[in-house]
Amino acid sequence: MPHISLGNDAPGIQSLFEYRPETAGPLCELAEVLLRGPSMLTRGERELIASYVSALNDCDFCTASHAAFAAAQLPGGMTLVDQVRADPESAPVSAKLGALLRIAAAVHRGGKDVRAQHVAAAREAGATDLEIHDTVLIAAAFCMFNRYVDGLATTLPEDPAGYAATAELIVSGGYTARSGQSAGHAR
Amino acid sequence: MPHISLGNDAPGIQSLFEYRPETAGPLCELAEVLLRGPSMLTRGERELIASYVSALNDCDFCTASHAAFAAAQLPGGMTLVDQVRADPESAPVSAKLGALLRIAAAVHRGGKDVRAQHVAAAREAGATDLEIHDTVLIAAAFCMFNRYVDGLATTLPEDPAGYAATAELIVSGGYTARSGQSAGHAR
Repeated sequence: MPHISLGNDAPGIQSLFEYRPETAGPLCELAEVLLRGPSMLTRGERELIASYVSALNDCDFCTASHAAFAAAQLPGGMTLVDQVRADPESAPVSAKLGALLRIAAAVHRGGKDVRAQHVAAAREAGATDLEIHDTVLIAAAFCMFNRYVDGLATTLPEDPAGYAATAELIVSGGYTARSGQSAGHAR
Repeated sequence: MPHISLGNDAPGIQSLFEYRPETAGPLCELAEVLLRGPSMLTRGERELIASYVSALNDCDFCTASHAAFAAAQLPGGMTLVDQVRADPESAPVSAKLGALLRIAAAVHRGGKDVRAQHVAAAREAGATDLEIHDTVLIAAAFCMFNRYVDGLATTLPEDPAGYAATAELIVSGGYTARSGQSAGHAR
């Protein structure tokens, strides 16, 4: 049960977006730019980083949601997502994505845990400065989203099929279409 | 020295805003709504929570910046900010703000560290659900901002007087006026 009265029965972060549309706006805009905007990283790769960091933060809702969004947009599908979650070092991802996942794991521990050698390794594997920047910000953003979702004890969807259904909406319409559903919050 | 070539000499998060204006927009919008938008918590109290969480995350730039922004807007000034940073339990803040600072510290550790008893204590001290919500989101957002600033190894201002100068700009014009300064990023 959520820690506060949200005035709606939506699961996870959607319940918070409906409760507080003023903050939902910039949060959805940030997710849209970071995870779906122009980038050399594919949308699937960015969702994979999001799900990986959410798993490190032990956030069930965000891990499952972004796993579904990644699986829907990656050639390797959920098999690849599961392999990365189980052991990123042995998962069949490119050297570049492997190095970026190592940076994301460091960000999850703390900003100062990202070392020059992490960045040098990513660059050697072909990552651009912008890809390194975006990886750091995606990982940092999920350290926020995960704490927001669990810090208010939001609920999980009753039917796990809901994650795949939401993935269809996100893949076709993006993150900002969703926040428009908000009807205001109860105070 | 920053981990990537930012193409500007601005300190801290400002260098990242100038490098990547596409993400600066929603990030500044979020800070504006959370820290300066309509709320029962004063702007000074919200900046105090931001600085406190930044100190827990060991982020020097955000700690000093938001300490200056808090001091400029709190009757207790920098003395109160320093007292909260040194020992929030003995600092002369209201019972409500003390309980909200305890929630913020829990969010910093992890979302699931926020327990029903933290929320019950805040409510008993007079906090509304919206104040509890906003405290969780402010704390979570600074777990992002802090990792973003340190994860890319941004620099500190050469002259610490820069924090107070920025405080004047923030207090008078807010966070969204600053992102408009962005001139684009080097890729």
